[in-house]
Amino acid sequence: MSEAIIPPLGVVPGIRLGTTMAGIRKAARPDLVVIQCESGTTAAAAFTQSHFAAAPVLVAKAHLARAEPRALVINTGFANAATGEGGQQDAYACCMALARELGCGPEEILPFSTGVIGERLPVAALVAGLPSAIASATEDGWLQAAHGIMTTDTVAKASAARLVLDDKLVRLVGIAKGSGMIHPNMATMLAFIGTDLSAPRTVLKAALDEAIRSTFNAISVDGDTSTNDAVIALATGKSGVRIDRSDGPVFARFVAVLETLCAELAHAIVRDGEGATKFVRVDVSGGRSHHECQVVANTIAQSPLVKTALFASDPNWGRILMAVGRSPIALDDPNRVTVTLNGLRVFTNGAVDPAYREEQGQKALAASDIVIGVDLGQGLEKATVFTCDLSYDYVRINGSYRT
Amino acid sequence: MSEAIIPPLGVVPGIRLGTTMAGIRKAARPDLVVIQCESGTTAAAAFTQSHFAAAPVLVAKAHLARAEPRALVINTGFANAATGEGGQQDAYACCMALARELGCGPEEILPFSTGVIGERLPVAALVAGLPSAIASATEDGWLQAAHGIMTTDTVAKASAARLVLDDKLVRLVGIAKGSGMIHPNMATMLAFIGTDLSAPRTVLKAALDEAIRSTFNAISVDGDTSTNDAVIALATGKSGVRIDRSDGPVFARFVAVLETLCAELAHAIVRDGEGATKFVRVDVSGGRSHHECQVVANTIAQSPLVKTALFASDPNWGRILMAVGRSPIALDDPNRVTVTLNGLRVFTNGAVDPAYREEQGQKALAASDIVIGVDLGQGLEKATVFTCDLSYDYVRINGSYRT
Repeated sequence: MSEAIIPPLGVVPGIRLGTTMAGIRKAARPDLVVIQCESGTTAAAAFTQSHFAAAPVLVAKAHLARAEPRALVINTGFANAATGEGGQQDAYACCMALARELGCGPEEILPFSTGVIGERLPVAALVAGLPSAIASATEDGWLQAAHGIMTTDTVAKASAARLVLDDKLVRLVGIAKGSGMIHPNMATMLAFIGTDLSAPRTVLKAALDEAIRSTFNAISVDGDTSTNDAVIALATGKSGVRIDRSDGPVFARFVAVLETLCAELAHAIVRDGEGATKFVRVDVSGGRSHHECQVVANTIAQSPLVKTALFASDPNWGRILMAVGRSPIALDDPNRVTVTLNGLRVFTNGAVDPAYREEQGQKALAASDIVIGVDLGQGLEKATVFTCDLSYDYVRINGSYRT
Repeated sequence: MSEAIIPPLGVVPGIRLGTTMAGIRKAARPDLVVIQCESGTTAAAAFTQSHFAAAPVLVAKAHLARAEPRALVINTGFANAATGEGGQQDAYACCMALARELGCGPEEILPFSTGVIGERLPVAALVAGLPSAIASATEDGWLQAAHGIMTTDTVAKASAARLVLDDKLVRLVGIAKGSGMIHPNMATMLAFIGTDLSAPRTVLKAALDEAIRSTFNAISVDGDTSTNDAVIALATGKSGVRIDRSDGPVFARFVAVLETLCAELAHAIVRDGEGATKFVRVDVSGGRSHHECQVVANTIAQSPLVKTALFASDPNWGRILMAVGRSPIALDDPNRVTVTLNGLRVFTNGAVDPAYREEQGQKALAASDIVIGVDLGQGLEKATVFTCDLSYDYVRINGSYRT
C-alpha cells in the first residue's frame, strides 16, 4: 500500500542537497545525503524520547545547543544506536570531516543515521563519500535526497507547499523516511523540512512543535518507537518574509501550512507502514481533555486484535469496544460511548445500534481508507491518530531473520 | 504449542461439577457448566478492569456483595458483553432459573459467560440445559468442566495441588480457559479454583489477590484485555482446616501453594496463546520499584517487533533495547542497563557485550522456552511477565473473518 506519485517539489532558496552512493552498508544504492544551508539559516528540531537515543541524536542535540547548522549529514545502513561512547566519537568524526570540507565548525554540522542498531558506523566509508555528496549538491535535489534516506521504505516520501505572506511567496519542502516506528533493524522515522521564511529559532521551534502534535506525533504503525527519530526544520530567510513572534495570524497561517506538509509526510509513512493494506484514522471525541482522547485513540491504534480485524475487513466492533474498555482513562458512563465505522453508527446506549446491519459494516470495512469514530460522551475535546492494519506481511517483514 | 497432559485432578470435598451440551451456540459440544458448592462455602473473586465489563460480571459482583454462592453457571458461545440492560436481565434470568432448580436464592448464583461479544445470550437454550448439567454433577467433574469452558482454546487447562496444614490434608483444584487476552470474538480468560480449606471471605480474597499478582496478572498474549475476565476461588471448609487471618506462616504456606496452582494455569494460557510457538519469561530487575520493573517487562512483552523477532528465533537485542528505551519510566543512566538472552549477556555499558557472538544468541533463541533478562541498574526491585511470540498464526486466527 503506497502512493508513489510526488508532485514537483521545487526549491527552497538557500538550501542545497547532494546525494551519493558511499557503499556504507550496501553497494550501488544512494546512502549518503548532505544538506547544506546558507549562513543566516535558523534550525529547530524534535527528537526521539527514547532512553536509548542514538549517538547522532546526542551529538545533534549538543551541536544545536551551540550553533545554528550549516549542514546536515544523513547516512543509511547503520543507526549508530546502542554503540556506546565509541558511537558518539564516530558521529563526531563525521561532523569534523564534513566541517573540514565545508570550511565551518564541527558544531555547525548535525548528523543523522538510520539502519541497523548496535553495530559501529563505518566512518571511513562515510567520510570518503562526502566530496561526492557535496559535488552533487543542488537546490533541486530534494527528491534524490528523499530516495537517499530510504531504508526498507517502499516509496520515497516528499511534499511541498507555498503560501503568500506580506505579499511575498514563502516556500516549504519536506522529505521523510520510515515505515514502522522502527524497522527490522532499519530504525527510524526521519524528516527534513526546509523553508525560505526568516524566523528566530524559538519561533521556528514553536511552529514545529505545533505542527508535529497532530502529524508525526499522531501516527502509529506498531506502537514501537525508534532510537533515532528526528524532525528538523531549516529556515533560510531568503524569502524576505520574517516572523518574529509565535502568536498572531501570520504565525498561525505559517503553522497551518507547515502542519499540512507534515501531515502529508506522516500519512505517507503510515501508508507505507510495514505490511499495511489499510489506512486508518481513529477519531476520538467527547473527552474531557485532548490527552484523554489521545490515550483512547492510541489504545485502539495499538490493539493487535483491532488491527488484525481491520486486515480481515471484519467489522468486529466488539474489539474496538474492548480497546476502549481497557484504555487507562476514567470513563464515567460506558453507556454514553458511541462507536462508528466510516460514519456508520454501530454501538450506542451500551449495545449494538438497533439499525445496524452486519452487511453495512462489511461494506464500510471493505474500503482501504477507514475511519473509526469513538465518542466518549463525557466532554468536548477530541484527538485523531492515524494507523494501519496488522497483516501477514508485518510478521513476514519483521519475523525474517536479519540478513 | 500446548501441553495436553494433565495429571489426575482429584476432588475438592464440597464441590460438584456438571457439564453438558446445551447447544447454546453450536451443537454437540460441551458448552454449559454448573459448579455447586455446599452450604458454608466462602468465595473470593477478581474481575476484569474493563470499562465495558460484561453483564455476567456486573451480576456476579452484585450477587457476591449480597451472599456467599451456592452455585456457578458458566456458558460458552456468547460473552453477553456489550448487550446493554437486556444483557443484564438475561444473566439474571439464568441465575433465577438455576436457583429454582437448586432451591436457593438467585443472589446465591454467580453467572459467567465467554464467547461472542455484542450478541444476546440465548437464555432459553441455556435454561433448558440446566437439568442435564445438574444431573451430571460429580465431585470428580473438574476435567470435564475444564473442557466445557473452552472456546478456541486448543487444550484444556487444569491443575491440582495439596498441602498439609495442622496435620490435615488440604486440597486445591483449578481450571482455566483463555488463549488470547480476548479471542477472535471468544472473549476471555476465566479461572475457577476450589479448595476444602475453611476461610472467611476477607482472608480468601487476600490470598487470591496475592496469588494472582505474579500469575494471572503477569501474563500477556497480545496486551488486550477482555470484557469478561474473572478468577474465582471457592473454599468449602470440608478439610477441617481453618485460616482466620491474612498473615502469618500458615497463611503464607497456603498462598504459596495457591500461587503455584495459579501459575500453572496462567502459564498454560500463555503456552496456548493464539499462534504461540515460544514461551517467553521477561525478567526485569534492578528497578527502584516492582511497578517500574513491571512497566518495562510489559512494554517488552507487548512490543510487536520483539514478538516477531522471537517468532523468527532472531536474537535481535536491538529491539529489546528499543522497547526498554520507550518504556514510560525514569531511567537515570541507560549505560547501566544490561540485557541477557537465556542468561547470555548481550548488552552492557551502552553497547554490545564484547564477548557476545551472534551464533550464541541464535542458539539461545532456537529454544522454545526463552528468558529475556533486563537489569535497569538503578535499584533492587524486580518483576516477571510471561508472554509468547507473534506469528503468522496469530494474524490468521484473529484476521479470519468471523464465521
